[in-house]
Amino acid sequence: MVIPDYGVPSRFEKGVARTLTNPRGEPRTQHGRTPHHVLNGTFTPNGLHFVISHSGNPDIDPDAHRLVIHGLVKRPLAFTLDALSRYPMQSRMTFVECGGNSAPLFSRVPVQANVQALHGLVSCAEWTGVMLSTLLDQAGIDPRATWLIAEGADSLAVSRSVPIAKAMDDVMVALYQNGERLRPDNGYPMRLLVPGWEGNLNVKWLRRIKLADMPAMSYYESRTYAPILPGGKAYQFYFLQEVKSFITHPSSGLRLNGSGFYEISGIAYSANGRISKVMVSADGGRTWAQAALQEPVHSKAFTRFRVPWRWDGGPAILQSRAWDEGGNAQPARAEIIARRGETKTVPNLNGFPSQHFNGPTSWGIERTGEVKHVYA
Amino acid sequence: MVIPDYGVPSRFEKGVARTLTNPRGEPRTQHGRTPHHVLNGTFTPNGLHFVISHSGNPDIDPDAHRLVIHGLVKRPLAFTLDALSRYPMQSRMTFVECGGNSAPLFSRVPVQANVQALHGLVSCAEWTGVMLSTLLDQAGIDPRATWLIAEGADSLAVSRSVPIAKAMDDVMVALYQNGERLRPDNGYPMRLLVPGWEGNLNVKWLRRIKLADMPAMSYYESRTYAPILPGGKAYQFYFLQEVKSFITHPSSGLRLNGSGFYEISGIAYSANGRISKVMVSADGGRTWAQAALQEPVHSKAFTRFRVPWRWDGGPAILQSRAWDEGGNAQPARAEIIARRGETKTVPNLNGFPSQHFNGPTSWGIERTGEVKHVYA
Repeated sequence: MVIPDYGVPSRFEKGVARTLTNPRGEPRTQHGRTPHHVLNGTFTPNGLHFVISHSGNPDIDPDAHRLVIHGLVKRPLAFTLDALSRYPMQSRMTFVECGGNSAPLFSRVPVQANVQALHGLVSCAEWTGVMLSTLLDQAGIDPRATWLIAEGADSLAVSRSVPIAKAMDDVMVALYQNGERLRPDNGYPMRLLVPGWEGNLNVKWLRRIKLADMPAMSYYESRTYAPILPGGKAYQFYFLQEVKSFITHPSSGLRLNGSGFYEISGIAYSANGRISKVMVSADGGRTWAQAALQEPVHSKAFTRFRVPWRWDGGPAILQSRAWDEGGNAQPARAEIIARRGETKTVPNLNGFPSQHFNGPTSWGIERTGEVKHVYA
Repeated sequence: MVIPDYGVPSRFEKGVARTLTNPRGEPRTQHGRTPHHVLNGTFTPNGLHFVISHSGNPDIDPDAHRLVIHGLVKRPLAFTLDALSRYPMQSRMTFVECGGNSAPLFSRVPVQANVQALHGLVSCAEWTGVMLSTLLDQAGIDPRATWLIAEGADSLAVSRSVPIAKAMDDVMVALYQNGERLRPDNGYPMRLLVPGWEGNLNVKWLRRIKLADMPAMSYYESRTYAPILPGGKAYQFYFLQEVKSFITHPSSGLRLNGSGFYEISGIAYSANGRISKVMVSADGGRTWAQAALQEPVHSKAFTRFRVPWRWDGGPAILQSRAWDEGGNAQPARAEIIARRGETKTVPNLNGFPSQHFNGPTSWGIERTGEVKHVYA
């Protein structure tokens, strides 16, 4: 076989792909989910990074694209991609997660689906770009500015509001993803990267940043990501994607091929910094073992955990629970449901009855070696 | 635009590709070089990882593939991919570099070519797999064994000898590259990963490991990677890819668009561990500034260095020099040439008159903003 100038996976890996909710690109949201059950390591290759596009991917000529910074600033600025490329850059590993990831776990009965369907709206990459603080320092922030409104160049002009304090902390205008230019799916030629915060804030195809003294109350912040809580209040501006973990190997849809040694491995991450500990149970939470964390452990990035396990061939329930360096632990599912409510079922994995589920996931191992999604 | 189930780069990035020496796959070696001048961050996306295949890429059905460990062992073993996947795994960032990378710098006159042509036979990825020591411990090493011979499943059955001490240190049977299964170009479904050592040792499409009490003296170790030195001795079993660095931005073939601020950035790496320091000069080596190293700095992996620079619009010569934690520094070109000889010219970038060039690279900036390869 001939070496191509841009390599592709083996033909035997055709099944390793994102699952699409709207594969013909009809005029509504498209989701593509990451197949964590067939990946390994600590991050996601670009072709398999999860993506949600509310009006398709715009086809942007990078030479014609501009990023404008205006509003409550001393000097409004406009940047070409070439101009931005002369600025000091940083690289960082970080995950991006949709606020609606893991929403099927709000269902009263465990949804029988694999880890891609349940948790496929999170991915991790190395992003390289210009710190937004560098650009805002040059523009000069008016002291009245407390928020910025970031807007994309898609046909919906998706926009979200970000507090200035976060913008000056670790927000980046990302130009490269895993070494190469961003993919069209992920905001080519530039996106906002808001480490650890709700995916929708990481505005793709970024064209405009307006500083203001209040949030924009845009569609996505006042409606989609502001679900009504049981008490009647709205769950709005809940930015953090809090500590979460799930086991990817073995996981639902895979099958154990006989008793004996297996490695249990999975992914943990938190908006509150580094993962400090992951505990794994093989008996539904009665006893726990501390997993090894793949070094180096990055802040706000995927951490691969691993623990050896000898399967005796009988029923077992695998579960993981993660802690972050801020001392936060994954809450029990019951605790989340008490606060946030439950849905009778999830008729559509994209219905997102609620967001920000970060409880544990349990995999029931049957005598046949089959793995099911269970609550335990 | 519709989201594909396996994402691809923007159509405006068509030029970001590997350069191929044998694009029709004629029955001789194929090279594909990484375009470092248009990448950023600390590693290489899989589609752009450099590749050398001496007889094309075999089309391997992973279910039919076996890895055999035999020779001077107590228990010969054969593994399916499924069986290997149950073993404990590790992930690590590491570079792989062809011994012939940078060979054009042996030329008496500076070859006018870009960083892809000069240094494109090195890439860096996160590899995940099973430590070879785990498998050798299970096989039981006969005390007489001092070498292993690793053999690939390509039609040439490329094979190389590796000392057992290295095999038990950090050699891996790699199954995943940057999160997904290895690409066919890079050894699908498994390769030997020999961190920091000559690329050819990282045997792709790995099918056989034979333990022995002497090296195999295979074609690639006794001929290709054993060039004759000026004194008549052969440069054989020179495994380490020693400390090296080169500036990627700006670099030959790119053009500076007017005076003012630029970030100089590049890549450094060493087989001897972590990069400890990179110094950058903008005046051909008269004065130096210490570059910032992108954290975290991994052992035997790409380290991105960056230094701010204000171009006054006049002639300038950019150069980098790296040190590793073992205290090794990049030697001057003159020192390498004195030891190893020089070629009148390099008629063919793949002629590899010699290997393991790790001196500095100099970029001459002209008043027009053009960047040339120079010796300084």
